[in-house]
Amino acid sequence: MSLTESILEGNRLALARLLTQVENDSPEGSLTLAELFQYTGKAHLIGVTGAPGTGKSSLVNQLALYYRRNGDKKVAIVAVDPSSPFTGGAVLGDRVRMRDLAGDEGIFIRSMATRGSLGGIARKTASLVQVFDAAGYEIIMIETVGAGQSEVDVAKLAHTTIVVEAPGLGDEIQAIKAGILEIADVLVINKADRPGVENTERALRSTLELAHPTKRLVRHHGRDMSITTPTVDANIWIPPINKTVATEGKGIAEVIESIARHADHLHQSGEWKGRDRARLESELEALLKETLMDRFLQNVRQDQYEEVIEKVIDRNISPYEAVNFLLNGR
Amino acid sequence: MSLTESILEGNRLALARLLTQVENDSPEGSLTLAELFQYTGKAHLIGVTGAPGTGKSSLVNQLALYYRRNGDKKVAIVAVDPSSPFTGGAVLGDRVRMRDLAGDEGIFIRSMATRGSLGGIARKTASLVQVFDAAGYEIIMIETVGAGQSEVDVAKLAHTTIVVEAPGLGDEIQAIKAGILEIADVLVINKADRPGVENTERALRSTLELAHPTKRLVRHHGRDMSITTPTVDANIWIPPINKTVATEGKGIAEVIESIARHADHLHQSGEWKGRDRARLESELEALLKETLMDRFLQNVRQDQYEEVIEKVIDRNISPYEAVNFLLNGR
Repeated sequence: MSLTESILEGNRLALARLLTQVENDSPEGSLTLAELFQYTGKAHLIGVTGAPGTGKSSLVNQLALYYRRNGDKKVAIVAVDPSSPFTGGAVLGDRVRMRDLAGDEGIFIRSMATRGSLGGIARKTASLVQVFDAAGYEIIMIETVGAGQSEVDVAKLAHTTIVVEAPGLGDEIQAIKAGILEIADVLVINKADRPGVENTERALRSTLELAHPTKRLVRHHGRDMSITTPTVDANIWIPPINKTVATEGKGIAEVIESIARHADHLHQSGEWKGRDRARLESELEALLKETLMDRFLQNVRQDQYEEVIEKVIDRNISPYEAVNFLLNGR
Repeated sequence: MSLTESILEGNRLALARLLTQVENDSPEGSLTLAELFQYTGKAHLIGVTGAPGTGKSSLVNQLALYYRRNGDKKVAIVAVDPSSPFTGGAVLGDRVRMRDLAGDEGIFIRSMATRGSLGGIARKTASLVQVFDAAGYEIIMIETVGAGQSEVDVAKLAHTTIVVEAPGLGDEIQAIKAGILEIADVLVINKADRPGVENTERALRSTLELAHPTKRLVRHHGRDMSITTPTVDANIWIPPINKTVATEGKGIAEVIESIARHADHLHQSGEWKGRDRARLESELEALLKETLMDRFLQNVRQDQYEEVIEKVIDRNISPYEAVNFLLNGR
């Protein structure tokens, strides 16, 4: 039986093998992925991001458990971890999770260390997600740490992006929050039993109001008649704010409900297809760029390439002139 | 007079104009940059990164002032800010800085909003730095916010990377710190008048020890004779930890000293040239990829390209097959 067939039949060992091949950029992985591609496009891709300390992983675990217990959906988790040779975060993360989720054949967890170039990470994450999609996982959660551009890039993969906050992480990180809020479809304040939860909620609401002016108008109508009566567009999605205590399983059902409502919104507004299209277009472009570069490197003489690099390092020619020379011979 | 000549003569308006052209990817900017490239390679490129709230910008300001007052070096600051349409962080940042540094012709500050793809940001930052280098700025500080992969990519541009910490930002962010520590050449604990500075220093030291085992051995020698006597390699750089209160100008001279020592180390070990080479090689590669893609798009028929994208979206062909078809016609 081929690797493709084994995966379509639900063989977990075959799945694990392909995930490793894909992460290592092996040719066999690429071939199998190409065969499996026709079976993708069914899963709901959910991105979960937020600063360290927000309890993001606990929330992801609880959402996974909820999906398993209510509806029996197959759930995959792709955790994109900041890797380090001496912390080994990715491996540790897997083991902590296992206590809650081990033994359930309907859940598959995969950590990916963020080695290599950022473009590489986003591309590999996209490939891992495609493997799970083809293998019949209906809910695929992509968990990323932090609040940088890398998270924004990975979030572009998702249909629904959840941004997790927690009380008391300090007002000084508001600046960076503003950027991450732009990508949020659902906001979760986790650790909502902690002091300061009202402040966090207030801060999120005012940032949201800046980002979605329509919403501010809606909330003020009737109180300040000088403001034009708003026309609420059914196609506008305003991110709901949910409060959870993930470690105790509190508020999880509400988050699941927000996710489901967002999926409905995406389907009704046509945005579901739009996000799919944008994702596949950028994947195709990245693949084209890499293939073009590989071909170029195969055709150029290594000594000529080295010689040009030396000239650039000696500042005899600029990088632009170097490219021109390598591609046009002049 | 050409733009290139004006910039070499030290005309600030011409410099500002070119920086804008480079940030906007204009053809004129690329041409001028190519002309200026031969004048680059003289500056010391210093990356400064750290989480929001560490007082990174104050530190950068103080370092710039110190360089100006002691040695009369021309200083450029490139601030890579997380941008947001509703916070306008980049603009605000510039105005806050101006109070300290305005009126000094030997300092030039440029903020860059982190719009667009991450590869684009790193490439544009590299180009801005080249412009300042050619224009005779001897110290170029590249300031980035946060602790994500984006910062790691930008840090690769620098000869010397300073990672800024502050007491009391919480142990929960240790995990992400570990990743950022790997790129640190100099560590600064800013806001060192705050409580908890000893804890921060202890945490940094123990993380450093994990990253640089040699150092641990050095510190323990004489106390635990069971450990092999270490051989200290003069070519190994162990990041010093400096403490500052940037708002009061305290500890700045020590950081300047650490930076100078690191520059000496880079020159003596040959790593200065090595970092230059690595940077230019990756710049050349990125430029090659972009040029190859531009050429491809010019030569492919738009309707054919659209048709292939549609087939991928309908899952009739995989992205790999699409690339194969577009490049080989089959």
